[in-house]
Amino acid sequence: MTPQATALEQTAESRDVVVSLLSERFGDRCARSEALRVQHGHTTTWLTNQPPDAVVFVRSTEEVAEIVRICAEHKVPVIPFGTGSSLEGHVNAPQGGISIDLSQMNEILSVSPEDLDCRVQAGVTRKQLNTHLRDTGLFFPIDPGADASLGGMASTRASGTNAVRYGTMCDAVLGLTIVTPQGEIVRTGSRARKSSAGYDLTRLMVGSEGTLGIITELQLRLHGIPEAISGGVCPFPTIEDACNAVITTIQCGIPVARIELLDPVQVKACNIYSKLDLAETPTLFLEFHGTEAGVQEQSYLFNEIAAELGGGPFVWETQAEARTKLWEARHNAYWSSFTLRPGAKGVATDVCVPISRLAECVEATRKDIETSGFIAPIVGHVGDGNFHVLVLVDADNNEEVQAAEAFVERLNYRAIDMGGTCTGEHGIGQGKIKYMQKEHGNGVDVMQTIKRALDPDNIMNPGKILPPS
Amino acid sequence: MTPQATALEQTAESRDVVVSLLSERFGDRCARSEALRVQHGHTTTWLTNQPPDAVVFVRSTEEVAEIVRICAEHKVPVIPFGTGSSLEGHVNAPQGGISIDLSQMNEILSVSPEDLDCRVQAGVTRKQLNTHLRDTGLFFPIDPGADASLGGMASTRASGTNAVRYGTMCDAVLGLTIVTPQGEIVRTGSRARKSSAGYDLTRLMVGSEGTLGIITELQLRLHGIPEAISGGVCPFPTIEDACNAVITTIQCGIPVARIELLDPVQVKACNIYSKLDLAETPTLFLEFHGTEAGVQEQSYLFNEIAAELGGGPFVWETQAEARTKLWEARHNAYWSSFTLRPGAKGVATDVCVPISRLAECVEATRKDIETSGFIAPIVGHVGDGNFHVLVLVDADNNEEVQAAEAFVERLNYRAIDMGGTCTGEHGIGQGKIKYMQKEHGNGVDVMQTIKRALDPDNIMNPGKILPPS
Repeated sequence: MTPQATALEQTAESRDVVVSLLSERFGDRCARSEALRVQHGHTTTWLTNQPPDAVVFVRSTEEVAEIVRICAEHKVPVIPFGTGSSLEGHVNAPQGGISIDLSQMNEILSVSPEDLDCRVQAGVTRKQLNTHLRDTGLFFPIDPGADASLGGMASTRASGTNAVRYGTMCDAVLGLTIVTPQGEIVRTGSRARKSSAGYDLTRLMVGSEGTLGIITELQLRLHGIPEAISGGVCPFPTIEDACNAVITTIQCGIPVARIELLDPVQVKACNIYSKLDLAETPTLFLEFHGTEAGVQEQSYLFNEIAAELGGGPFVWETQAEARTKLWEARHNAYWSSFTLRPGAKGVATDVCVPISRLAECVEATRKDIETSGFIAPIVGHVGDGNFHVLVLVDADNNEEVQAAEAFVERLNYRAIDMGGTCTGEHGIGQGKIKYMQKEHGNGVDVMQTIKRALDPDNIMNPGKILPPS
Repeated sequence: MTPQATALEQTAESRDVVVSLLSERFGDRCARSEALRVQHGHTTTWLTNQPPDAVVFVRSTEEVAEIVRICAEHKVPVIPFGTGSSLEGHVNAPQGGISIDLSQMNEILSVSPEDLDCRVQAGVTRKQLNTHLRDTGLFFPIDPGADASLGGMASTRASGTNAVRYGTMCDAVLGLTIVTPQGEIVRTGSRARKSSAGYDLTRLMVGSEGTLGIITELQLRLHGIPEAISGGVCPFPTIEDACNAVITTIQCGIPVARIELLDPVQVKACNIYSKLDLAETPTLFLEFHGTEAGVQEQSYLFNEIAAELGGGPFVWETQAEARTKLWEARHNAYWSSFTLRPGAKGVATDVCVPISRLAECVEATRKDIETSGFIAPIVGHVGDGNFHVLVLVDADNNEEVQAAEAFVERLNYRAIDMGGTCTGEHGIGQGKIKYMQKEHGNGVDVMQTIKRALDPDNIMNPGKILPPS
């Protein structure tokens, strides 16, 4: 037996005890059905599904604390679950244990228009929050592809198309309620906009993927809905030209709200799926937020930049309907890709590089895709230097899957070699642990020291982020 | 003997050994003169000076690592020193030890205009950086009162007048080189704009005041110098009206670059010191950054808001000279205050509250000052809800000093009770440790666990931030 198998055997009894205790305490809300357990293992990627022993649907921070205390006593793993839309195996249970499903903790606790902030339970999704905010003149900007839970988005330090203007979850989270690995309830941060009072526990928790504690509530920064929004599409002869337009736009201080690159393959997929008729060439999708005069000025300035770099015509839309169609197409880019190879599975990955290296990194990746013979559209939040590749594979063809994994590995090492990171917004989970050493060097030791100190029994989402120490 | 005195006695021998070793290794760069030691203890506040045993002037990260390894072996305290402009006793040496002076590590290592970032050694000051950047079209926005070192600014999570637009050191720092308590050199972050790759060590270090490691290099985010800048001054009948104008301005999404409140006492001081003739009433100082058309529009919108709230006339200046005079007056507010009571010492403090509570907090503080009979001007970065009070005291009058300390205590508790923080930008140091429990509750235990794990012998800037555990 492998050491892991032995460990699993040894803990199997403890896990049974915990499941019994939780069943007794939570009744039907402690579910053990195969279907639910598998659904709470990871389902959206190429990683193997590793279901938990049971799923508990919680309704309060106190319930989370109670479960964690029971698990801590028996040294049984705890895996927080929001909507299950993460991409790197974050919710898998490689050592079994209890999945804590926070989706029923979906109350919006307070909104303060004066302070431009709100407090929500961790299971509230980003779309639910924005629907709730509709009449306040405020909105929450961060928009990963999925309608993820805000707790999950904080855990993976998510971002999306308008991070270039509004930042990521690192910027959006003002404070948290967390349940520690010992089952204690701790509030981090305050309602002040800034603070110099001690260690930044909020930002240590954001991006820690449930390995240091479970986020149960969030204090979030909101933004006023801009008076005017305009957006448009601009084709470029080459990826380099498009990237240079992005660099110039950012350097000129144009406060662009969204600036997204689609490579020709991605444009083709969007054309088919969303019934557009864009030229199949590197294309930027843009959006400007501001006053009426401001967005006009921004569009005008961008148009000049694009024209100088051989891009254009820049077709821009102030009508909400046309703009919504464009951005729906952009948001559906992931799903549209599958039209290029019906029946295929997607191996999704994201990297982020300094913007000065972006054209070089995308070009090298494009060539790698061609050489490898993949169909693999590229789409990027290029204002941040962040881009995604979705490799379409025949999941039953082992050779193809392995080739895709090797490609992803080359891409991640390429990004790190350029001074970038192996993930701009998806997180590490299980899938990217192998890049941590290369990216952080002995910083990994510091992370491991923190993990061991806060969670000495390694019960919080074990097997994620960090290589075994 | 007190336990602390005993501990000092026990370690005195180790400290002597370390000073000998460092003198041998660094020659004249290891200084032991009384004057230098006292200068490297804390001098800018009411806190007692506690000089280190020696000061070493370092020139490289490797030298810092070497010193820390020697100190770690002998369990002797290490205190990093930049310019000594911090306000809460951050550089004091309550248990003796070695002050590492980083002021000679003042090289600007690289500037990348394409990426809007730069890499600097920790001893570079903010003004030095901006002078260096002058011809690049870029600037570094964060401006605490003093010309502090960038390493020190990161350590205290500093901000300044334009944090409302450009953020604080939390936002400005993309990555760090640190020397750990074991004397290892670790690089945190990357050159990518965002990352989801593991624990955010960068932001754990920012604001940790040298208690978890020593910052020796910083990767910093830069901004394009705006095409147009305009600014001005707007009087209000009451502090509440002024605060309401701030709230409305922020809510309307006007991207104000600076919005500062001066209470009538502070206006009076500025009038005397900087030869202005402003009405002695609550006054906002504003600055707008953008395109020519953009700043005009911003000024116009603000003017409308102010007029509706009974403020005005809003006098605005597009001429650089007149604007510079205004902002110099604002930057000299600290020094100007002493004209109100020549010979007095200043007890400086800062708090930060949710902006919806700002008027209430400032008003209550104003009344407290009146009741206490102090001369104590108030000035605030009100776009963030952050404000400062400088209580002018006769340092030889013990009763007065104690009354000032009691006032500061009431102010800090008031801010925390309003959902705010005991410091928006000065940091905790020694002076604010007593508020940590009230503000963070059992979050302090989490911080202590992290501190013990990373620095088990408590050699890194001991006696700062955290109460004894």
